[in-house]
Amino acid sequence: MVRAAIVLFEGVTLLDAVGPYEMWVGLPGVEVVFVAAERGPVRAAGGRGALVADASFAEVERADVVCVPGGPGQARHMGGGSLVEWVRRVDAGSRWTTSVCTGSLILAAAGLLEGRRATTHWLARGQLARWGVFVVQERVVFDGGYVTAAGVSAGIDMGLVLAERLTDRRTAQLVQLAAEYDPRPPFDAGSEVTAPPEVVAAARARSRFSVEGAG
Amino acid sequence: MVRAAIVLFEGVTLLDAVGPYEMWVGLPGVEVVFVAAERGPVRAAGGRGALVADASFAEVERADVVCVPGGPGQARHMGGGSLVEWVRRVDAGSRWTTSVCTGSLILAAAGLLEGRRATTHWLARGQLARWGVFVVQERVVFDGGYVTAAGVSAGIDMGLVLAERLTDRRTAQLVQLAAEYDPRPPFDAGSEVTAPPEVVAAARARSRFSVEGAG
Repeated sequence: MVRAAIVLFEGVTLLDAVGPYEMWVGLPGVEVVFVAAERGPVRAAGGRGALVADASFAEVERADVVCVPGGPGQARHMGGGSLVEWVRRVDAGSRWTTSVCTGSLILAAAGLLEGRRATTHWLARGQLARWGVFVVQERVVFDGGYVTAAGVSAGIDMGLVLAERLTDRRTAQLVQLAAEYDPRPPFDAGSEVTAPPEVVAAARARSRFSVEGAG
Repeated sequence: MVRAAIVLFEGVTLLDAVGPYEMWVGLPGVEVVFVAAERGPVRAAGGRGALVADASFAEVERADVVCVPGGPGQARHMGGGSLVEWVRRVDAGSRWTTSVCTGSLILAAAGLLEGRRATTHWLARGQLARWGVFVVQERVVFDGGYVTAAGVSAGIDMGLVLAERLTDRRTAQLVQLAAEYDPRPPFDAGSEVTAPPEVVAAARARSRFSVEGAG
């Protein structure tokens, strides 16, 4: 049985965590668990909505797949602490250590990405580079056993890519079909390259007031 | 303040609920709340993972936007009961009543979709049609104040389309950019039209053993 542990922390962005969860939870031979400092509800960014952690850090000593989502609350862990220490500890025995969005900043704070290729939310690329990471502007980036995804919704793509590695292509395609992942965004505004310049400027201005604003 | 209420029930598919949540939670003037029969954790399909309901049906008598996600647990509500009754009650005062995936079957069971155009998970189209619904094979379907989305991940697209109606295009685009919703599915297997025939057959075979299998 492959165990995938998805980390939760106060101020997590729910979609960062639920995207990979949904791509993995139906895989044969894979067990997915949400983990946090303590068992129980973990509040999302802004306090509206919460996911439940079914295991505490102390209860999960090893995982084949570790996933660190992002969210405004990530900022509180950049100086270290129990979350960063747990990530470092389980990474030592994991086959894949992954992140979504600003979750890669936590991997960096755990000392796992120095000199590696990785990605993050587009507004957090400068921050990630300051940890000695070679920041790549791609949706999903592999470097050895490290897999990092771009912002928020990129966790779905990362989850599917990894689903194939954990099983096989046909099984991953079955997951995609079950989730009817045939995206039809109503606007072409999902990246800073395609979004209207005034929308990119508004996003940058908003993030200036809230450094942790990058989901 | 616009109130958006997203319904949870045992056996819900987490991404169905979290997709629209994430598209709405950052909108100015919009308050999003997860609602269920009782406050507290609500288990996802398969029992792995849970979202927290912050309000009970009794506490939410009106909502401007109602969203009913799908999931295997939906089957238990097709004969009526408190969830269906609550949906019918709040629909009477809502501006938009929406669904993701098999959530549209619950709207149908509440008598809200008869004679209307609507959609659902691709494996549940036949079931939806039996409720007198004109089933449309589109990603997001509007009919008056009713907005239904296709399977699981289609809730993100539906959420974005409705975000524009609740605010304006620029704000919806800002949400899309913040979520970096620039999807790059690794396979072209997200619909029964594009997926390899053997993958479609496997999905159909699996759903035959579990009618509620459609997320």
